[in-house]
Amino acid sequence: MHDVAAAAGVSRGTVSRVINGGYVSGAARAAIEAAIAEVGYVPNTAARNLVMQRSQAVAFLVLEPPSLILEDPNIGAIMLGANAVLSSADYQLVNLVVDSARDTERITKYLSGGFVDGAVIVSARANDPITRVVTDLALPATFVGHPADLKQGIPFIGIDNVGSARAITERLAATGRKRIGMIAAAVDRDSGADRLTGFRQALGRRFKPNLVAHVPFYDYASGMEGMRQLLQREPRLDGVFAASDAVAAGALQVLRELGRSVPGDVGVVGFDDSPWAQRTDPALSTVHQPAKEIGAQAADLVLRQLGGKTPEPGGILLPTPIVWRASA
Amino acid sequence: MHDVAAAAGVSRGTVSRVINGGYVSGAARAAIEAAIAEVGYVPNTAARNLVMQRSQAVAFLVLEPPSLILEDPNIGAIMLGANAVLSSADYQLVNLVVDSARDTERITKYLSGGFVDGAVIVSARANDPITRVVTDLALPATFVGHPADLKQGIPFIGIDNVGSARAITERLAATGRKRIGMIAAAVDRDSGADRLTGFRQALGRRFKPNLVAHVPFYDYASGMEGMRQLLQREPRLDGVFAASDAVAAGALQVLRELGRSVPGDVGVVGFDDSPWAQRTDPALSTVHQPAKEIGAQAADLVLRQLGGKTPEPGGILLPTPIVWRASA
Repeated sequence: MHDVAAAAGVSRGTVSRVINGGYVSGAARAAIEAAIAEVGYVPNTAARNLVMQRSQAVAFLVLEPPSLILEDPNIGAIMLGANAVLSSADYQLVNLVVDSARDTERITKYLSGGFVDGAVIVSARANDPITRVVTDLALPATFVGHPADLKQGIPFIGIDNVGSARAITERLAATGRKRIGMIAAAVDRDSGADRLTGFRQALGRRFKPNLVAHVPFYDYASGMEGMRQLLQREPRLDGVFAASDAVAAGALQVLRELGRSVPGDVGVVGFDDSPWAQRTDPALSTVHQPAKEIGAQAADLVLRQLGGKTPEPGGILLPTPIVWRASA
Repeated sequence: MHDVAAAAGVSRGTVSRVINGGYVSGAARAAIEAAIAEVGYVPNTAARNLVMQRSQAVAFLVLEPPSLILEDPNIGAIMLGANAVLSSADYQLVNLVVDSARDTERITKYLSGGFVDGAVIVSARANDPITRVVTDLALPATFVGHPADLKQGIPFIGIDNVGSARAITERLAATGRKRIGMIAAAVDRDSGADRLTGFRQALGRRFKPNLVAHVPFYDYASGMEGMRQLLQREPRLDGVFAASDAVAAGALQVLRELGRSVPGDVGVVGFDDSPWAQRTDPALSTVHQPAKEIGAQAADLVLRQLGGKTPEPGGILLPTPIVWRASA
């Protein structure tokens, strides 16, 4: 800026006024614009924003193993929904990858260090260090999902996992299935635990604990593992509720390998209505998650907080219609 | 910092020395640390880094439609490879989503505004505005792939797409196939154009232009579309080179729908060796791309430039072995 002022023969204050949109005479403006072009000056937006106490950036974090994020198209759809809303408000979404303890530690510093004005946080579990930093700093944030230890007053957005799981299990049972199992993934997340609760509620007294296979993640490999376990425990199994579409895709692969027909021998239902659901053979009957809308509303809640509004207490739950295709 | 100094009864300079690791007496340090805890002071890392003229952050950008990024596990693997290298050097990878013209415009400002020290850029085409900003600013960057207009001296990293495509086509032809077609995706990218060139070279005088179906993207839907086109033009087709594994997965789906056996009636080969390759039925014969390694080396080249080293002229090409499975 010093060089621009010298080249234009004006004070640095006048240069600053041109850059920041204040009043200067037409002649001074023309001289300064020519000088800017001459010296190749680029305003440092980071510096300017810092003076304004803002970065115009919002972090997007998914607290799941990255291998899982990469194969879960829903998470991508949530991110695109959030990006669209932030972009139209001229905010930059910065997606931060959490792949190690070192990443977590560095990111907590990044979040508290003035690089972002807010955050959208997906899939937090209780006791996550990133959740703790965000709540301790009172960084404007929205959670997608609802970790058990989320402080009152911090907004969250999600779906009714209990009700949705109950509804699709009831629908599966209504096709005449007698021995229905569940591949229950990620029960350390609120979503995973709630889907298992909904499954239990739907079966009521017909629920058998040994027909629940617990697997760690919402992914294809977990689906294969869970399906093998269920068939070992109950070879006459005729129905399966898989906790996500990726899990269901893994289950279908095992059923195919073992020569079981779907839906003839075994009816299979998933959860998410992600692109997986239309690519399996047969296509999956599943619960539709409005992933883009979840992301859009999460971003909107961050922007409202940045605009000085206090979020309403409690969370927002979006509707989840059942999509019935060919797998059950 | 003013509040901390007042609470501790010392000067702001002394507080600054404690925070920045300079020498102070043990008693002053204890008083200041107690005052920091009391007033809840958090150092603004963004401000401190700005004084040092650095952000300790590197942008990661993929210049492809986001829907495609979400279903291409290779891009995720490149990002994780880059993140691991940046993380161990205490740099924050910030992944920026490009989903609209507005995103592009805002991101060019972000890149030039001091928020990042460098960038890894994947899948740039010629004339991309983001490429132009990066090269105009001389921002330390590495390109994954090689856009036709990349300035001399800017490092890039990739694979020998021509040689790899030639090798897998030759291998497919060696299984006795007589009428081999190609589903050629994204020929507006260097990778897409080069894979088509390799296919042509392998077939030599047996190459028939009407057995190339051009499709826009490296994705499943493009694979379905391309396969339908090829079979319409040549119903007796007995071999297909699909430009990526996702494209091959779409092609397999169409062949299955039409009752053609693979590899019995038609041999199919892909490109990438992504998780898709092991989930198709039958599993794909394909070209292995060392995606994590590509990301790691791209990040390393950015860090070298940040360390003041001039990158070697030209690019780095990594080896791509053929992985032969069951689809051909």
